[in-house]
Amino acid sequence: MNFNRRNFIRTSGLTAIAGFAGIETVFAVMKNKSTKKSGKGLVLRFVQYDLLLNHTFTIANSSRNSTPDMLTSIEFDGITGYGEASMPPYLGESVETATKFFSLLDLGQFKDPFQMDDILTYVDSVMPGNCAAKAAIDIALHDLVGKIMGQPWYKIWGFDPADTPNTSFTIGIDTMEMVRQKTLEATPYKILKVKLGQKTDRDMIETIRSVTNVSLCVDVNQGWTDRQMALDMIHWLKEKGVVFVEQPMPKTAIDDMAWLTENSPLPTIADESLQRLPDVMKAKGVYSGINIKLMKCTGMREAHQMLTLAESFGMKVMIGCMTETSCAVSAAAQLSPKCEWADLDGNLLISNDPYSGVQVVNGKVILIDQPGIGIKEIKKVFE
Amino acid sequence: MNFNRRNFIRTSGLTAIAGFAGIETVFAVMKNKSTKKSGKGLVLRFVQYDLLLNHTFTIANSSRNSTPDMLTSIEFDGITGYGEASMPPYLGESVETATKFFSLLDLGQFKDPFQMDDILTYVDSVMPGNCAAKAAIDIALHDLVGKIMGQPWYKIWGFDPADTPNTSFTIGIDTMEMVRQKTLEATPYKILKVKLGQKTDRDMIETIRSVTNVSLCVDVNQGWTDRQMALDMIHWLKEKGVVFVEQPMPKTAIDDMAWLTENSPLPTIADESLQRLPDVMKAKGVYSGINIKLMKCTGMREAHQMLTLAESFGMKVMIGCMTETSCAVSAAAQLSPKCEWADLDGNLLISNDPYSGVQVVNGKVILIDQPGIGIKEIKKVFE
Repeated sequence: MNFNRRNFIRTSGLTAIAGFAGIETVFAVMKNKSTKKSGKGLVLRFVQYDLLLNHTFTIANSSRNSTPDMLTSIEFDGITGYGEASMPPYLGESVETATKFFSLLDLGQFKDPFQMDDILTYVDSVMPGNCAAKAAIDIALHDLVGKIMGQPWYKIWGFDPADTPNTSFTIGIDTMEMVRQKTLEATPYKILKVKLGQKTDRDMIETIRSVTNVSLCVDVNQGWTDRQMALDMIHWLKEKGVVFVEQPMPKTAIDDMAWLTENSPLPTIADESLQRLPDVMKAKGVYSGINIKLMKCTGMREAHQMLTLAESFGMKVMIGCMTETSCAVSAAAQLSPKCEWADLDGNLLISNDPYSGVQVVNGKVILIDQPGIGIKEIKKVFE
Repeated sequence: MNFNRRNFIRTSGLTAIAGFAGIETVFAVMKNKSTKKSGKGLVLRFVQYDLLLNHTFTIANSSRNSTPDMLTSIEFDGITGYGEASMPPYLGESVETATKFFSLLDLGQFKDPFQMDDILTYVDSVMPGNCAAKAAIDIALHDLVGKIMGQPWYKIWGFDPADTPNTSFTIGIDTMEMVRQKTLEATPYKILKVKLGQKTDRDMIETIRSVTNVSLCVDVNQGWTDRQMALDMIHWLKEKGVVFVEQPMPKTAIDDMAWLTENSPLPTIADESLQRLPDVMKAKGVYSGINIKLMKCTGMREAHQMLTLAESFGMKVMIGCMTETSCAVSAAAQLSPKCEWADLDGNLLISNDPYSGVQVVNGKVILIDQPGIGIKEIKKVFE
């Protein structure tokens, strides 16, 4: 990274600069975009980068060994921001759909990366859906703008890095021997997230409890269909030291979920029920809280708005992720000081992470005081 | 202002600095607040500064020639942010209450101005009420942090400065001759805000219409008590070129207001009905939109959250002000690109503005591309 160049950009807003036409043009455009159309715009790059999983990943209705992924970068005047679209197949996006989406975008029309609202509104308007692809643009733009300002986003948003929660580490559905082994590997974590929603639910919990006393949370991935059975199960889980239950019932079972939340001794968290900002209001009164994931909500900007909304509704917020590189996980982690829980283990589940960024130390999310989303390339992805 | 010093601070987050103990200590504390208690904290200053009004100001139930006001500054490591508390008497705050509030604060405990969330949560917790005094802290802190980042807040928030609305200019209740004269003085404005809520309402509108064809909006300040009369009046106002109606009925008349909004041909805007973030949800379904004022909602941070909430509810937002210096008006103006309407004429109504900042050119709010809230001292207020 070119620090001299970056500092030069950052100070040029305050001091008169002569003899450097490129910068002058850019800043003139920033001040009066409607009359000056010259100057370079944002440059988007993207590349396929499939993620290799350490363990076969099983949820209630599928399993896989890799996750399709695309990495992005947005360059503006010598500064580069990085982004990512992680696309587990069950969400409907793919390398093909993301490539098509990125190819349709004309980011070169934007001469000022600070106009994030205009840029991201445009990106959202190009096609419906494509939330992970949109997040890949949003994250790269945030990284870029944070670098121009010389600050990480958790600071720009005014959050205290000491307030980051412990992150949960996910134990997928597997044979009891593998569950026991994965639980033992997860020793540093203060909270484990157990995937339920199968006939083996009680065995999963008992097996984990046979080797650890740490807090547990469970993610049922819509796996329970009978509300009374769900309530009975939650009472049993509470006795086993479970602290919250994610998406216990199908997302369509709204009345049953509202009843369950009303009667549940543990908080209920919406995941599959919730995607973007308007869904937060729909989740109010149905769930106790929401799981925000950048790949579902189009990125950091909308995630921050969802956090504001949930907070004002008195709902709890969990910040989650897919299997992702340190890029998207570090982006999500910027929000974590304001979240009750974090499920930011996505980068720890893959063997080919090209970035370093947010750390987990003794189970706690540790933010890096570096501009943007705070990542470094450890393996060259873009030429 | 010391630009060399400021740039030095802004670049110090990226490059190693040796031989300057003050900066080193501060940045060490920023990175690890829990273990290092040394280093200087935020320094708050405040001074009484009554605002002298160009014209006697009359609303539905009072009139006055000056507005009690206090100016604040927060200094951190050689950089100073400016804030303000404007306290029109009907809102219940005074120089005495603000002085007491400021004296109770211990901002010196905070070693990192970026931890705005912690700082402003603390400020809000010290005493209930005191919203203008709290805004004076919030604005000064935003100005300070924006200066450290080297960017104005509209850019940090990602807004497009080209999107600022026209600002309305207020025509207070007065003799018809004075109303005519004030309307003629308001020639550059594209929208006038007419204070109604008296027996002279139709005369006011007719008098203004006798000298200008510009758009009008009206602020009734709870002055109408009969909903059918209010609806008839709104129909008549629509024919006269009025575009929205602010606080037509008493804030307690919630059912009548919901009925009026449902039937009104013009948008209805909540003002006295609304103060802080939780009030936005209460206004949903009762009004078409909200008037956000920094002095009522404790400042820029909560105002930005209210904007997010209102947007997600599909409600229109107006950004308003009291009679204020260019300090608080420029702070409010940072939000204006995302607002449908602006009522940011408070600094134009006083004769002793010690700052310059946001401009109104041909009736439109023009933001200044300067860090923080973008103001300059034109008269020394603090020693």
